[in-house]
Amino acid sequence: MSNMVKVQSELLTQLCTEILKKYNIPSEDALCIAESLVSADLRGVNSHGVMRLPLYLECIKDGSFESASDIKIVNRTNTTAVFDGGNGLGQVVSQKAIDLIVEETKEKEMFAVAVRNSNHFGAAGYWADQLQKNNMIGIVASNVPPIMPAPGGAEARVGNNPIAIAVPTGQDVPIMLDMATSTVPFGKILNFKNKGEQIPEGWAVNSKGEMTTDPEEVVMGGSLFPVGGPKGYGLSVIIEVLSALLSDGAIGSDIRVLHNTVPNNVSFFFLGIRIDAFIELETFHKKVDHYIQFIKSTKLAEGVSEVYLPGELEFLKEKSSRKEGILLPDSVINQLVTCANLAKVDDSIIQQLSKTVSK
Amino acid sequence: MSNMVKVQSELLTQLCTEILKKYNIPSEDALCIAESLVSADLRGVNSHGVMRLPLYLECIKDGSFESASDIKIVNRTNTTAVFDGGNGLGQVVSQKAIDLIVEETKEKEMFAVAVRNSNHFGAAGYWADQLQKNNMIGIVASNVPPIMPAPGGAEARVGNNPIAIAVPTGQDVPIMLDMATSTVPFGKILNFKNKGEQIPEGWAVNSKGEMTTDPEEVVMGGSLFPVGGPKGYGLSVIIEVLSALLSDGAIGSDIRVLHNTVPNNVSFFFLGIRIDAFIELETFHKKVDHYIQFIKSTKLAEGVSEVYLPGELEFLKEKSSRKEGILLPDSVINQLVTCANLAKVDDSIIQQLSKTVSK
Repeated sequence: MSNMVKVQSELLTQLCTEILKKYNIPSEDALCIAESLVSADLRGVNSHGVMRLPLYLECIKDGSFESASDIKIVNRTNTTAVFDGGNGLGQVVSQKAIDLIVEETKEKEMFAVAVRNSNHFGAAGYWADQLQKNNMIGIVASNVPPIMPAPGGAEARVGNNPIAIAVPTGQDVPIMLDMATSTVPFGKILNFKNKGEQIPEGWAVNSKGEMTTDPEEVVMGGSLFPVGGPKGYGLSVIIEVLSALLSDGAIGSDIRVLHNTVPNNVSFFFLGIRIDAFIELETFHKKVDHYIQFIKSTKLAEGVSEVYLPGELEFLKEKSSRKEGILLPDSVINQLVTCANLAKVDDSIIQQLSKTVSK
Repeated sequence: MSNMVKVQSELLTQLCTEILKKYNIPSEDALCIAESLVSADLRGVNSHGVMRLPLYLECIKDGSFESASDIKIVNRTNTTAVFDGGNGLGQVVSQKAIDLIVEETKEKEMFAVAVRNSNHFGAAGYWADQLQKNNMIGIVASNVPPIMPAPGGAEARVGNNPIAIAVPTGQDVPIMLDMATSTVPFGKILNFKNKGEQIPEGWAVNSKGEMTTDPEEVVMGGSLFPVGGPKGYGLSVIIEVLSALLSDGAIGSDIRVLHNTVPNNVSFFFLGIRIDAFIELETFHKKVDHYIQFIKSTKLAEGVSEVYLPGELEFLKEKSSRKEGILLPDSVINQLVTCANLAKVDDSIIQQLSKTVSK
């Protein structure tokens, strides 16, 4: 069993950046990747946090991912662009897409970018958040390898493709939907399996396409079930269209699980819509505030002290972990220390982190 | 109990158009409204079909809806517009929004319209379909009155706001997601109540915000449950932002259930994204085709003969009912005949429809 330890986010970001630089990732890109991972940990979404770094490093080491990818704009119109990510780390091309949208929407009301030939970009919400910080509604989506059946199917055919939509509120805290299109992530099935517990109905199907409550059956050739059946399936298909079909990217079995020895080969979609194209920003902020008050003014279920807007809990978590540090299993920290030692990162940084664990 | 009867779609459209004209709806608008309703019946989505017409008529008669609404463009940029629907029938302003998008995207890659101060627009998919027919990805959404709690709440705070996204495929049949953000529509709860059956877990909560399987409890102050909990809730909030907050429309309890004596006061959002801004149309069609083949090539669950793309079943239904007629309960037809008689519609049309029932 892992013990939980507290790490300051700055230290974690610095360490990850330094490790990535040793893998020939340009400094600016290394910082961008590190920040995206640490941001997920800050928000309590550890599945998309620094625990992913060792796998990224494996992929760079064996050549599955390019460390300094050649990003090309393959198509460009007044308000849209298609990027080829050059099989680099997803964060690098994603930041370029966001920067382009922010730049272009200084004069235009909307701008969209589709990206092909890239790899894992961390949490979709990290990118949508940058758009909302620029007074846009930010829509960001990615395809992932097939892991859910079409309704009636007995094989994975669509990814549990994630989508994030962020909206500025005039306050610190944005409205942020960041969801995958399965009922639950695969990791949750594994947790139940490890504890020897049954999973609830509606989470997954077995290899015959039958709904199952046995996590063993899911791991042995089963699939995740789309949230709401045809609804989650439909959303997932739409996200595939927006990301991979618009960008001429890989689809179906040409997308691979994040793993060493193969490129991930995923595609992304980014869309920024300027609020003030529709309504004065100040009026919008007042309206959002009014709407939030209406939602919060609800009668509550027993034992509940407050209802939250989408993404609000993650925002509050980020605020507190920025101050008090991020809680992580020591096994994750130890792995990072091993990576840092192997990469010959400056000893003083490693020692600071090691101290955290030995405390 | 109603008997089911078959009606030709042209006859149904003609009758609804003539009735609406007698209510001072301009001819072109009357046809537009009739076609949107009949289209839903053609697709087997009868809840959004001609059974809604008597209620529309009540609302026009008592002045809740304007029959010839004064639609204003209240804001306009190069690629966006905000309409005030003038409290007319939703279909009229929706058609204007679609026409504007189709016109503007002859030269631009994307165009978006937000609409406030309108009423029920029928099925969202009807509008998204028009955009895909013009080689766009069409995104259409509407808010509706609060009918679902925020997770943890014991009162309705968000609508089960519908969204439709349509994608052209190069074939007749588009990809079409058309979903509400609740697990099931309210009508389904009523069906179970009428049959005296329990509803499955996850469909609805009671007035205390507790999950319930008793449809009586749902009707007595309960609410629908969002599909996937926080996921459906989050989507619903985002749709409210896109439709009502961008357009400065009504929110929360200022939106009313479709009912005589009050305006509906809903808002809409329409976005068209031209495919060929990203990828050559021909290449896109081939890619979509390849993707559809991949999904259809799946191993099947027992008893299943094929899996379908989103919206495919409704499309097939439309194709067959265009040929063979629409199956409707005779009670719906009888209601229409009564409406037509009251409105003094040309007898020959009424008699044609009456013959259908008496057969």
